[in-house]
This record gives sequence, C-alpha cells and structure tokens, in this order.
Amino acid sequence: MGEAGFSQGFRADLERLMRWRRDVRHFRTAPVDPALVETCLATFPLAPSVGLSEPWRVVRVESPERRAAAQANFEAANKTALSGYSGEKAKIYATLKLSGMSDAPVQLAVFCDDETAKGAGLGAATMPEARRYSVVAAVFQFWLTARAHGLGVGWVSILDPTQLARDLDVPESWRLVAWLCVGWPVEESAEPELEKLGWEKRISQVETLIR
Amino acid sequence: MGEAGFSQGFRADLERLMRWRRDVRHFRTAPVDPALVETCLATFPLAPSVGLSEPWRVVRVESPERRAAAQANFEAANKTALSGYSGEKAKIYATLKLSGMSDAPVQLAVFCDDETAKGAGLGAATMPEARRYSVVAAVFQFWLTARAHGLGVGWVSILDPTQLARDLDVPESWRLVAWLCVGWPVEESAEPELEKLGWEKRISQVETLIR
Repeated sequence: MGEAGFSQGFRADLERLMRWRRDVRHFRTAPVDPALVETCLATFPLAPSVGLSEPWRVVRVESPERRAAAQANFEAANKTALSGYSGEKAKIYATLKLSGMSDAPVQLAVFCDDETAKGAGLGAATMPEARRYSVVAAVFQFWLTARAHGLGVGWVSILDPTQLARDLDVPESWRLVAWLCVGWPVEESAEPELEKLGWEKRISQVETLIR
Repeated sequence: MGEAGFSQGFRADLERLMRWRRDVRHFRTAPVDPALVETCLATFPLAPSVGLSEPWRVVRVESPERRAAAQANFEAANKTALSGYSGEKAKIYATLKLSGMSDAPVQLAVFCDDETAKGAGLGAATMPEARRYSVVAAVFQFWLTARAHGLGVGWVSILDPTQLARDLDVPESWRLVAWLCVGWPVEESAEPELEKLGWEKRISQVETLIR
C-alpha cells in the first residue's frame, strides 16, 4: 500500500482509466439505469471548489423540445465552424461526428452560477474564472466515474452558450460550462477519434519550462 | 469486473480518493522525489482537450526570486481580499492559511496557451474557454494522481494572473489557470479546512433541474 492507503494496483488502474477515458460520440440507444446516473452525479459534491462555493448546477435535459433546440444550436454552430475551414481541413471536419446529441440517452447541461453567494467570494476576486474551473473539476470527476462503470461521456462545446441557457430557461447568472452526452458506447478505442481521422496528433509528453 | 474491465474494488477506491482528496495548504518541507513529480506530470497528455489542442503549459517555479515574486503577488491579493470582508467573516478570513507557497517544495504554474494553433480551433469557436477547461482537466488528473501517491496538492487562485505571467516571463498568449503547491502534507483530513474553520459548509448532494 502507498502512503495514502492506495495500492500500487489502484494507481495503475487509475492511470489506465485516464489513458482509456476518451470523449465518446457514438452511443448505443440502450437506456442507462437511473441508479447508475445517480452514482455518477453523486461525485459532484466531492469536487474541489473555490472557497467551497460549489457553483455547479446540473440540468437533466429530457424534454424532446429542449433537446431539439439544443441540437439545432449545435448544428448551427457546427455549420459556422465548418465554413471557417478550407481545403483538407474542411474535408476532414465535414466527416467528423462532433456530438452524440442525436443518440445519447442521457444528456446533461452543466452550468456555473457565477453569482453564487456560497463561499462569499473567497479565492475568486482576482480570478473569478476559478468558479467555472471548479465546475470543470466536478464534470471531470463525473466523467472518470462514468467511464469506470463502462459508460461513455462526450463533452460538447460547439454551442452558443447564451442561446442554450435561454432555451433551457435557467437563471441569468448561470453560464454553460459543459453539455454532456452520456450512454453506452458503440465501441472502445484507446485512440482519440480526432487522431484516428487525421485532424490532429497527440503529443506524448508534456514539456515543462523551468523558471 | 465491470463492463470496462474496472473492478468494483477499483471504483470504490476511486470514490474514496475523490472523497479524501482535499486541497492541501500545510506542507512538510521534506523534498519530493523528482521521479514521483514526473509520474504525476506524465498524466497531462492523457487529459481530454478540445480539438486535441493540448493547450496546457507547465512552468516549474524553482528560482527563489520568482517564488518570492509569486508569494508577494499572493500576499497583496490576499490583503485586498481581506479588506473586502467585515465582522465575523473578516475575523475568520484572517485566520485562514490560503496557500502553501511558503513551504511547498514543488511549485508549478499551469497556463493555457489561448492562441495555440494545435487543434485548429476545433470546438473552441463559440466557447473559447473550452481550452482553459482542458487545462483544468489536466490539472485535476495531476491532482488525483498525486493524491493517490499520498502527495498533497493545493491550488492557489488568489493571485493577479497578469502580474504572475509577467514575473515568470512567459509568452503573451499564456493565461494562468492554476498555481499548484505540491509536497507531503502535514496531516490528512476528510473535512475541508474551510469547513473546519467555519468559513462555509458543504452541501451533501447535487440538486438537479429537469428540463
């Protein structure tokens, strides 16, 4: 056992989970047991948050109308994005499936309440974005937990966040951080789809500067 | 074994790690084996990044002069923050130790390169902040990995990020995401220090809206 009571086997599996995680965009339509969704959501309050502000707000998007509005939002943003590329990049972009919104059985919109009174602003004066970063940490805990259960998670950012907040009728102070598609993946792969399809290559090592 | 090849025991330990993680601010000055720091840093390229942009940039801050500048930056920001509270809140704030910068043996400044060409902007047109969120995911993987080895990590956000980037002499397009203090913790606690010292209470459950 390690100093923290975590075994070497656990650490090896944690690294394997990170290596294998993937952003999943192809989902089977098979439903996800609601209890499993609850298990994954239960990791939210375990996330670090600046000043204990816990600014995460989770919306489960279930109504077909709201889902359709979100999908239309994605399609418009994606079309605009495509028009910004030319040549080989445009060709590849057009072949990419960049969201699982059309088939993921569970879809969550995760917001940050930029104006929460919780935490009384501690740690967020010079870097107010720290609140949103807390939400990202919570999203990422959810993601790792879901993957450890075999569930797929895909993060969609090709959205007009203001329009989306309006379509979901959430408070003014909520800012979209992530749209999450959740469900059983069609296939598993150790390689990111963007790499497989020739969009971009991963680097193998982080370079660090010494100062 | 679960569907993903991760055992129930692993999932229980993962949840235990998240529950026990903590933001650590009291460090022993004992050095950290450089190989262990490398092991933790090796998780950076495993993080998800929008468009495979991998925008994380890590600076190991080692020179006493640069560390002193960063600490002065923190102290100024913290003093300003304190002056914004009054009454009971001001009293509690003054007792809080909000950074381990004076004693953590390893200190990292993690930036986002907002203008990286990598990923060709995919996924970052309507929500350019997605690049910074990618950096947060990488930071959080580092954090979980360090904790699984028993190392403590503390994230400092009470800093003027522009001044800090200037003092560390990094490129203009790099934006500070996190200052990380890393080292062996003085003690372990399941309870956040901000809760223990009466600043704020944690909620136990995430509330979700249905839309």
